Amino acid sequence: MSLINHSQAKVFDGWHKQYIHQSSTLNCEMRFAIYLPLEATEDKPVPVLYWLSGLTCTDENFMQKAGAFKKAAELGIAIVAPDTSPRGEGVPDDPEGAYDFGLGAGFYLNATQEPWQEHYQMYSYIVDELPLLIEANFPVSKRKAISGHSMGGHGALTIGIKNPTAYSSISAFSPICHPMAVPWGQKAFRNYLGEDKSKWLQYDAVELMKTHLITAPILVDQGNADSFLTEQLKPETLQSAAIEAKANLTLRIQPGYDHSYYFIQTFIDDHLEFHAKYLKTE
Amino acid sequence: MSLINHSQAKVFDGWHKQYIHQSSTLNCEMRFAIYLPLEATEDKPVPVLYWLSGLTCTDENFMQKAGAFKKAAELGIAIVAPDTSPRGEGVPDDPEGAYDFGLGAGFYLNATQEPWQEHYQMYSYIVDELPLLIEANFPVSKRKAISGHSMGGHGALTIGIKNPTAYSSISAFSPICHPMAVPWGQKAFRNYLGEDKSKWLQYDAVELMKTHLITAPILVDQGNADSFLTEQLKPETLQSAAIEAKANLTLRIQPGYDHSYYFIQTFIDDHLEFHAKYLKTE
Repeated sequence: MSLINHSQAKVFDGWHKQYIHQSSTLNCEMRFAIYLPLEATEDKPVPVLYWLSGLTCTDENFMQKAGAFKKAAELGIAIVAPDTSPRGEGVPDDPEGAYDFGLGAGFYLNATQEPWQEHYQMYSYIVDELPLLIEANFPVSKRKAISGHSMGGHGALTIGIKNPTAYSSISAFSPICHPMAVPWGQKAFRNYLGEDKSKWLQYDAVELMKTHLITAPILVDQGNADSFLTEQLKPETLQSAAIEAKANLTLRIQPGYDHSYYFIQTFIDDHLEFHAKYLKTE
Repeated sequence: MSLINHSQAKVFDGWHKQYIHQSSTLNCEMRFAIYLPLEATEDKPVPVLYWLSGLTCTDENFMQKAGAFKKAAELGIAIVAPDTSPRGEGVPDDPEGAYDFGLGAGFYLNATQEPWQEHYQMYSYIVDELPLLIEANFPVSKRKAISGHSMGGHGALTIGIKNPTAYSSISAFSPICHPMAVPWGQKAFRNYLGEDKSKWLQYDAVELMKTHLITAPILVDQGNADSFLTEQLKPETLQSAAIEAKANLTLRIQPGYDHSYYFIQTFIDDHLEFHAKYLKTE
């Protein structure tokens, strides 16, 4: 698994770098970005926060707009941001070019339906291939946490819940909490997974809470001026499921904030401090 | 002068908003962005930092990528980011569509040559029209500082030096210090101002230092891994001129940093604190 360095820039004494690699899981070339704080060395590997972005994003949105590196440098945490779907020649896209399905909209699941299943295997990419690649090539430890925004919040919640020993903490901004019950999720699940709704349960955070022991603490921030709140996000369904499951969920409704990266920028330091508390203790 | 609100998002308890207005100076519609901290009210107007962006940018680059709002909120400073050139129907562009001239490359000067002079009057827009508009429509005081990046660093230096009573402090990241002596500046000045180089002197920071009393303190940060450093930026010429002029210039060469917004993100808090020191004292 060879990595090609695509860019690098010093930031807050550490480095932001982009790499390209051939993904055996996704059957295409992928780009990801990593922030490595100054203190990360072979002798002193740092833990990693995996960040999953939302619809239409690439590895760049969070890295450029979240303003996360000052705090990450201070806490000594690396951040890895993958792309949000397979890309490139031969990777199929929504036939109508919609923003909410296909390219930029992999929904962090393993597709089972034609023509998507050959490339759209983002769940396995995030859970298996990417951490192996990161741990083999950078001065990081095996301590991992996971976070994300919107579709990426859905990804962080579902991946975190399904892999309780892999991620020490989980957080999300404005996540799609109950994709089976909302238009974005239903469109994606129907196309990627087929009509059988029993297959959808494995990628729905609210449903997963009913069947999994939730050990990792979860922090969710949601703006109440978010235009997707009622139709697509439904944080109240996550809160009910968490109470039922006795999960350690903190849901914060932030008055006046919307769905943008300005919202993420405002609260990302809280999330980094939250994750550091669990990442930095063995 | 009516303003049309184009967008708004809450960020760090304040607001980022974009507005569109008809500019009488530029003879076209212009968009600008403003960050207003929570504490800005009619009873307690806040000072303003004007930020001038570099080649190819709009009002959005700094606002999305600099990570400046946390510190601006803490210090109680508004930030205004204008566009980098006139825009829209009828505004001429570089005939070859180059990135370094025409749209996105107004160079913060008043053009005198056909066909540029009808719209390319960014100097007067930044110095006169925009502050009047801001002061008439937002809870801000008349205390102003100015900063910018690359072409915008050139803008901040030249505008700050030429208007010593208007701006209490000046700063720049990676500025084009001596545009008369470098390809970017020569192309712009030749086209906008004509072949007579005596007309170029009024928009060259190094030349202006020879003829102006510099009262405002100046802070400049420059990365030494900046690929434009030697050919286009030439900070050493500014330093020599400042010594000669007995100007209060602090030039910091930052090892390993490049020309990107990751560099700006790393040091923007220093610049905000620098400006606050002068903006917040009468």
